[in-house]
Amino acid sequence: MRHQQHPDIWQQLQTHLGEWVIQSKAQAPKGHVATYIPELANASEDSLSICVMDGSGATVTAGETDCLFTLQSISKVFTLMLALIDHGEAVVFSKVGMEPTGDDFNSMLKLELVEPGIPFNPLINAGAIAISSLIGGDTPEKQIERALAFFRDIADNPSLAINQAVFKSESDTAHRNRSLAYFLKDNGVLDGEVDDILRVYFSHCSIEVSCKDLARMALVLAYDGVDPIRNKRLIPRRYVQIAKTFMITCGMYNASGEFAMNVGLPAKSGVSGGILTIVPGRYGIGVVGPALNRKGNSTAGVHLLETLSREFDWSLF
Amino acid sequence: MRHQQHPDIWQQLQTHLGEWVIQSKAQAPKGHVATYIPELANASEDSLSICVMDGSGATVTAGETDCLFTLQSISKVFTLMLALIDHGEAVVFSKVGMEPTGDDFNSMLKLELVEPGIPFNPLINAGAIAISSLIGGDTPEKQIERALAFFRDIADNPSLAINQAVFKSESDTAHRNRSLAYFLKDNGVLDGEVDDILRVYFSHCSIEVSCKDLARMALVLAYDGVDPIRNKRLIPRRYVQIAKTFMITCGMYNASGEFAMNVGLPAKSGVSGGILTIVPGRYGIGVVGPALNRKGNSTAGVHLLETLSREFDWSLF
Amino acid sequence: MRHQQHPDIWQQLQTHLGEWVIQSKAQAPKGHVATYIPELANASEDSLSICVMDGSGATVTAGETDCLFTLQSISKVFTLMLALIDHGEAVVFSKVGMEPTGDDFNSMLKLELVEPGIPFNPLINAGAIAISSLIGGDTPEKQIERALAFFRDIADNPSLAINQAVFKSESDTAHRNRSLAYFLKDNGVLDGEVDDILRVYFSHCSIEVSCKDLARMALVLAYDGVDPIRNKRLIPRRYVQIAKTFMITCGMYNASGEFAMNVGLPAKSGVSGGILTIVPGRYGIGVVGPALNRKGNSTAGVHLLETLSREFDWSLF
Amino acid sequence: MRHQQHPDIWQQLQTHLGEWVIQSKAQAPKGHVATYIPELANASEDSLSICVMDGSGATVTAGETDCLFTLQSISKVFTLMLALIDHGEAVVFSKVGMEPTGDDFNSMLKLELVEPGIPFNPLINAGAIAISSLIGGDTPEKQIERALAFFRDIADNPSLAINQAVFKSESDTAHRNRSLAYFLKDNGVLDGEVDDILRVYFSHCSIEVSCKDLARMALVLAYDGVDPIRNKRLIPRRYVQIAKTFMITCGMYNASGEFAMNVGLPAKSGVSGGILTIVPGRYGIGVVGPALNRKGNSTAGVHLLETLSREFDWSLF
Repeated sequence: MRHQQHPDIWQQLQTHLGEWVIQSKAQAPKGHVATYIPELANASEDSLSICVMDGSGATVTAGETDCLFTLQSISKVFTLMLALIDHGEAVVFSKVGMEPTGDDFNSMLKLELVEPGIPFNPLINAGAIAISSLIGGDTPEKQIERALAFFRDIADNPSLAINQAVFKSESDTAHRNRSLAYFLKDNGVLDGEVDDILRVYFSHCSIEVSCKDLARMALVLAYDGVDPIRNKRLIPRRYVQIAKTFMITCGMYNASGEFAMNVGLPAKSGVSGGILTIVPGRYGIGVVGPALNRKGNSTAGVHLLETLSREFDWSLF
Repeated sequence: MRHQQHPDIWQQLQTHLGEWVIQSKAQAPKGHVATYIPELANASEDSLSICVMDGSGATVTAGETDCLFTLQSISKVFTLMLALIDHGEAVVFSKVGMEPTGDDFNSMLKLELVEPGIPFNPLINAGAIAISSLIGGDTPEKQIERALAFFRDIADNPSLAINQAVFKSESDTAHRNRSLAYFLKDNGVLDGEVDDILRVYFSHCSIEVSCKDLARMALVLAYDGVDPIRNKRLIPRRYVQIAKTFMITCGMYNASGEFAMNVGLPAKSGVSGGILTIVPGRYGIGVVGPALNRKGNSTAGVHLLETLSREFDWSLF
Repeated sequence: MRHQQHPDIWQQLQTHLGEWVIQSKAQAPKGHVATYIPELANASEDSLSICVMDGSGATVTAGETDCLFTLQSISKVFTLMLALIDHGEAVVFSKVGMEPTGDDFNSMLKLELVEPGIPFNPLINAGAIAISSLIGGDTPEKQIERALAFFRDIADNPSLAINQAVFKSESDTAHRNRSLAYFLKDNGVLDGEVDDILRVYFSHCSIEVSCKDLARMALVLAYDGVDPIRNKRLIPRRYVQIAKTFMITCGMYNASGEFAMNVGLPAKSGVSGGILTIVPGRYGIGVVGPALNRKGNSTAGVHLLETLSREFDWSLF
Repeated sequence: MRHQQHPDIWQQLQTHLGEWVIQSKAQAPKGHVATYIPELANASEDSLSICVMDGSGATVTAGETDCLFTLQSISKVFTLMLALIDHGEAVVFSKVGMEPTGDDFNSMLKLELVEPGIPFNPLINAGAIAISSLIGGDTPEKQIERALAFFRDIADNPSLAINQAVFKSESDTAHRNRSLAYFLKDNGVLDGEVDDILRVYFSHCSIEVSCKDLARMALVLAYDGVDPIRNKRLIPRRYVQIAKTFMITCGMYNASGEFAMNVGLPAKSGVSGGILTIVPGRYGIGVVGPALNRKGNSTAGVHLLETLSREFDWSLF
């Protein structure tokens, strides 16, 4: 089978992953745990964990891979695919564009400056909020349910749940996201009520996973939408292709270009310090290291992925 | 008395104002009634009225000067002075700056781009929302009451009231203002709840006045805060000076510079087509012509004021 | 005569100006001498001089009012009037707008973002460069000659000259101005060669004056274009009105609004620390204090003018 | 050999390429030949040519693949690699960043707004000008020689030459590029003289190639820097990897994201209508169709590459 054709890599991972994690952990003090969502500020600043999963479900891990953290922006990759499933490409790309922005993830500049005032892509906050409005369901509650069911299916973990404390923390402090959403509403991008849409948005951002869950979810992307373990298609291949493309061009905030150059794998980071990445056709990878660099990515996590990509020549380019 | 020392002007106004209004009305078709607040779209597109009031309360008028319209942005000049009365200069200018922006009245660019992210001045929407939050009163209701009482006192008209249909219309459609307010909240400019502050803001924007009321209110500014009719100080002179300065530099949206060059009087326009202006030490003037030019000012109203200023050499410069 | 009707002010100036200068000098250490033009960096950081001249040519002075400095941006007010004399309002305002920008004096943002890509006003660098191209003369040399003759006439000082060391210093280091000029050229705002136009621009910026010259030049503006000493009209009144309006709305860079509020007089500052201001119908005032605040205006000079305006209630507002 | 392992694709290309080109040509009328460089305006608006070359040098072609056109922005990919060869990654990435911008290719916004004011990437104009300054050589002439020699080597065509008419046309009209260059100079990004650097820049933009040359050059990138025909390494693999990454994230101007999603191959377009793209490890592809879409890419060329990628499932994602 395809996922068993690199025994050397697997063996080296088993031998060296622990030491690589220790080396990368040394980068953590250069970063800082996000504090803008109060609940996140409790994360352990110097930790770093990783889980690499192959197509059979076998894993190599280092660190505390069962600790839970919230998906945050990582969820945007999956809600994008869910919106595509629910509405198709034409509708989705009438609400969000396909281009990286070069601006901050929560920037509103291009909404004001660039016609027609739709978010440049679905992975910046404005775009992800627009995408949340497109998740199927008559009510926000049904949309949240649908999203949660989708995440549970991808992760093959029916116990995935929303961390209500984080959800509340985000809702209470998310003035900038509210500002973004009302701007979108004014530009005609959002149809429903802002509060409802943001409830959906904060809910999927607050889904709690372990590092292992992250690797499991990544695995489905690595196999183009088919879960190789259950041998079951979960997402149409084209939608995974779209998601992977965005992960390359916009997945790591304003350091996506740098990450593409130094790692070269589709990835998505979150403010909780998580990074989901894939080695196409081979591995799903989940990483979490809460200390973030200036661009909002896990300082230690990025370092670790750079090491792995270099060691195993994993770049797509 | 000071306000009776220009008999020639008064006589000429009585003789010519009607014909000047007719000439300026010809400009109305170049403009369009604002439609972004649905209730405003009902205004008569080709009308133009003016009331010039001297310090004795005598008036020269043309057009239907008793028709009512809402103050809209004109109210911002008075709420600024009220906030100064309630909190003083130090507090007010910690929340808003003193500079014209060159951007649109509802722009958010400088909130994102220019430290410390406070509105550049109190007459753009962002600034006026910040100012609304500073009107004295424990609750939004008390703030609204206080504002209304202030406007009634300035206009010497206890029957001034909020047009509830316009208020509702503005509240329901003001996504951009909501976006602005949440951005300000995120930047730490607003202390209270956004919904409460916007209720105050929409309320004073929706106060209904006649052209004559406008001239009466302007008169108090023309006499530096003293009502010359009741011979009573209503506003500290320094705060009127501050207001008049902003009226010159930012009173006519992004055409303030042009208006200063061609009229040269402190003025404030509103999206309902009203313009309040003063001849310092002499006249209060109210104008209303609902058809707006590209910059948001009454097309015919600006033309009329250019005529008057040129005829009587009224420019301060 | 008009300029002799305020004997109290004159007497108070004679009595107190020296002490007010000493008080304002205490502000100088909060500022810094401009270094971006190397020649300017040699100015004495803690000096402050002022010359107030009335319509008879009588002066009250404090500090070393004969020391020479270059006009820099102060020259822009006069080249604007010269361009108006040479081409009229229609041509001039097809090349520059009438509005304050809120952006830095050397910003290029609005050239890229706001149609039709002409400078917002003639007092920011982009606008002043466009204005330099409109000074009459077949060659840059003739344009420079014409400008110099105009400045000499206004200052009633045939020995005004260009400081060649400053001129060279500016030419050699003005990459940003070159960038601005080529952007303007690309936008169709400039007709001639960029190098020629910048030679004219740097030349009039490098004209050297004393504080007394500055007061003498201001006097002509204070009397609406007539030199009250020679009793001779030098500039059409309308063009002085235009200049004075811009001095109020844009004369002090991005602190024009603040200056209008705290001083309330038409003024123009330069990076050499000079400020030209007027009390309309009465005085021409020249100030120089090389230490600049963050906004590019003389720290001590602004403080001194605030004191004078407050003491004598000079604000136009 | 690696490049002979897809006989089906090759056969289908031979059978269908002609008809696909005819289909894509139908898109040409939706675009327009660039006119901002006068010499380019002479191109045939409705033409479309393509050359696909495999690792043995065998080709499948359609259209007039020997017609010459200038490289324009396509040259930027190769000068980037040359600058990397001459200075290494550390120096190069101290002068340009690694991120897509979302702004126009000639935008100056981020140079003014985002610290430290270096171009966001080497493929926008500002970045490519900075890169031109880093090509080895004591004089502009030597730099141009060195660049030309490099291009000739990559294309394995010693007769590649600079089209002097295009070079002159670009030099004479490139006010915006001059503006960019002086801004960079002011920001400390450029060391040499602007005129010299632009001479180098316009020279490599004006190198003339055929569609076949383009495919030949692409082939070297498809084989990670080794020319598979001469079996000779021409560029270090890491530098090709860097170039390919930028081609994915920024190669198609502000439609790079869309191209990545619909084609998924590293590519670079030029305003002459050329597109260089690769199928990694297999083919070098040159396309030229002068009619450009709104984003500056060949309308028909993009359509053709979308067809090929879809037919053969060539996307990297």
